[in-house]
Amino acid sequence: MTYADRWLLPDGVEEILPAEAKPIELLRRQLLDLYATWGYDLVIPPLLEYTDSLLIGLGRDVDLLTFKVTDQLTGRTLGIRADITPQTARIDAHSMAAKGANRLCYAGNVVHTKPKNPLATRTPMQVGLEFYGEAGLAADVEVISLLLESLRVSGLPKLHVDLGHVGIYRALAACAKLNPAQEDEFFDLLQRKAVTEIREWVAAKVTDPKCASLLLALPTLAGGVDVLTKARGLFAEIPNAVAAVDQLLHVAGIMAERYPEAEFYYDLGELRGYHYLTGLVFAAYAPGFGNPIASGGRYDHIGEVFGRARPATGFALDICAISKLGLLQAKSGYAIAVVENGDARQWQAVQALRAQGERVVYAPAEEIKAVRELRLVGDAYQVVNR
Amino acid sequence: MTYADRWLLPDGVEEILPAEAKPIELLRRQLLDLYATWGYDLVIPPLLEYTDSLLIGLGRDVDLLTFKVTDQLTGRTLGIRADITPQTARIDAHSMAAKGANRLCYAGNVVHTKPKNPLATRTPMQVGLEFYGEAGLAADVEVISLLLESLRVSGLPKLHVDLGHVGIYRALAACAKLNPAQEDEFFDLLQRKAVTEIREWVAAKVTDPKCASLLLALPTLAGGVDVLTKARGLFAEIPNAVAAVDQLLHVAGIMAERYPEAEFYYDLGELRGYHYLTGLVFAAYAPGFGNPIASGGRYDHIGEVFGRARPATGFALDICAISKLGLLQAKSGYAIAVVENGDARQWQAVQALRAQGERVVYAPAEEIKAVRELRLVGDAYQVVNR
Repeated sequence: MTYADRWLLPDGVEEILPAEAKPIELLRRQLLDLYATWGYDLVIPPLLEYTDSLLIGLGRDVDLLTFKVTDQLTGRTLGIRADITPQTARIDAHSMAAKGANRLCYAGNVVHTKPKNPLATRTPMQVGLEFYGEAGLAADVEVISLLLESLRVSGLPKLHVDLGHVGIYRALAACAKLNPAQEDEFFDLLQRKAVTEIREWVAAKVTDPKCASLLLALPTLAGGVDVLTKARGLFAEIPNAVAAVDQLLHVAGIMAERYPEAEFYYDLGELRGYHYLTGLVFAAYAPGFGNPIASGGRYDHIGEVFGRARPATGFALDICAISKLGLLQAKSGYAIAVVENGDARQWQAVQALRAQGERVVYAPAEEIKAVRELRLVGDAYQVVNR
Repeated sequence: MTYADRWLLPDGVEEILPAEAKPIELLRRQLLDLYATWGYDLVIPPLLEYTDSLLIGLGRDVDLLTFKVTDQLTGRTLGIRADITPQTARIDAHSMAAKGANRLCYAGNVVHTKPKNPLATRTPMQVGLEFYGEAGLAADVEVISLLLESLRVSGLPKLHVDLGHVGIYRALAACAKLNPAQEDEFFDLLQRKAVTEIREWVAAKVTDPKCASLLLALPTLAGGVDVLTKARGLFAEIPNAVAAVDQLLHVAGIMAERYPEAEFYYDLGELRGYHYLTGLVFAAYAPGFGNPIASGGRYDHIGEVFGRARPATGFALDICAISKLGLLQAKSGYAIAVVENGDARQWQAVQALRAQGERVVYAPAEEIKAVRELRLVGDAYQVVNR
């Protein structure tokens, strides 16, 4: 091992140096403070837990992303968290045993065994929130509003949010009488937007012509709010699909009123998180950044494995991805330099300035590059420009 | 696996619920803001790195505390960090390639394979700072001052700091011509304060009667500042030991002036971190809490393995341990409750209150327990006491 090798960080593992760390810390605080004003309480779940509780309900994707280690105290398997949502669900269901609405937020690092995509980090910093105990659309509206507020705070010049609803595909799959294996097969084709294969697959597997045509229409139902009106007509004979579209229409109406500057895109074939999400799903995108910078949705079933199913919706932002957009700014005040002279009055002057929030740095006289310096002028210490 | 088992967190792994998380977050911010006013820049090192860089220079103790996983991209061994200091040292030496003084601070979780002691957590939250590039005592004085400032911010009613200097034992070991194995043996006896064994060991291994008596005196040299004057007399013929005591005397003088309310305890036989520390060492204790809540010292050699030795001193606090003292308090404002009525003016009133920092929470009418409520009074929305 050479010296040079020792400096290296693993691929996709990132350290954040001061120029970037300062605005990231500021954004972290602004987001948590924003969530507090909406009634969300901070929780700090641990970095590792038994995989038995950590990997519950989120399916195989998260399992593969999770580093496993052996607990030296019990011999059981521990996972280093790859997602904070299941931890928050456990805290809501068990540790807080909340009844009725429970609003929680968090900020912390997660670790992935592999990058989720070629450009992604393996150590994202998640800031997010979860709204438990409220099955009605009011919770979805609140959470999506908070997503938009978060994008605003993050300084994004354009707010762009994709909305979908996994209930639509579930309803069409039921109509087409797909078994769970077929449901997964078609889901994979949909995710890959493999149009030709979709056509062949539907022709081979779906006998009911009405349901077959609706499944074929699904990937094309993407665009502005008129997509929803169109879908409502198409799905008229499938009540569950209509109900899901109506939820989207309701949210679309409120969002257009609250955030007229934002762009909403409705994609009924987009099923990110399909294996554990149960209702409205959404993601936020930034120009020039292919992956969502925030994503979330409703996941009412996750608490079941803990013996206590609770309605749930929420989202998480990747604060490092937002930082990479280069939009964050931190106020940078000029430091005041001071040359130590052993005078107790100098120390008092320095401490008084620091108590006012000034940044005062001791430095040798020859190294001072600061614009301002604390000096003895006459018989008092004063901040002078150099 | 029963439902009950699934709730369980591993022993020594802790989640932090809102009542505790809020004051912890506040303290985290206050400490980082304090360090910023002293010129310390925030860095955010990753949760995992190659063990080749993570475990360098800190010796076997940290190695045993570190969970290891295999990097699926390279097959190399990764460690989940058990300490942030070596990461900061790497950042200073390599990533920033700083010349001259470099002041860094950090806040983050670390993970330990086993609790450091029966009552310790395996997931401490470290907030700390490191001062690189300054070999003089000015850096030690600054860092110890910041430790005291940190204790003040943490609301400790009594500031209690232990000070020592590993240079004293090194000088005595050289005087007694101990080889490295013997040095470790005596070190172990010292740590265990095994007085009888120490006497037998010295009688058997140390031939020079003067050095033998000094080694025997070491465990007894603990107490107020007069211990230092006494030690200075005892060690008069060992220049390196005298130099170390003089460093302690210098720091003692400044600290007594700056922090007259603090209690300083000098323990020349206390050698925590002996294997990597190189000069002044210190730890802070709180009443009723056996383990240090903060500790640190000078560790000038750690950068060598990266090909670039830099003078270094710093400390870290365990912010969760401080929280357990029950002294932290967070301002808790009363929330304002509001019943959603679909009126756009209500939404505007809610958003205006939130922008002022008020906590406004939507709730069903029958669940409102808040003292204050936003209501339509006449034709304007107003906050009313209930």
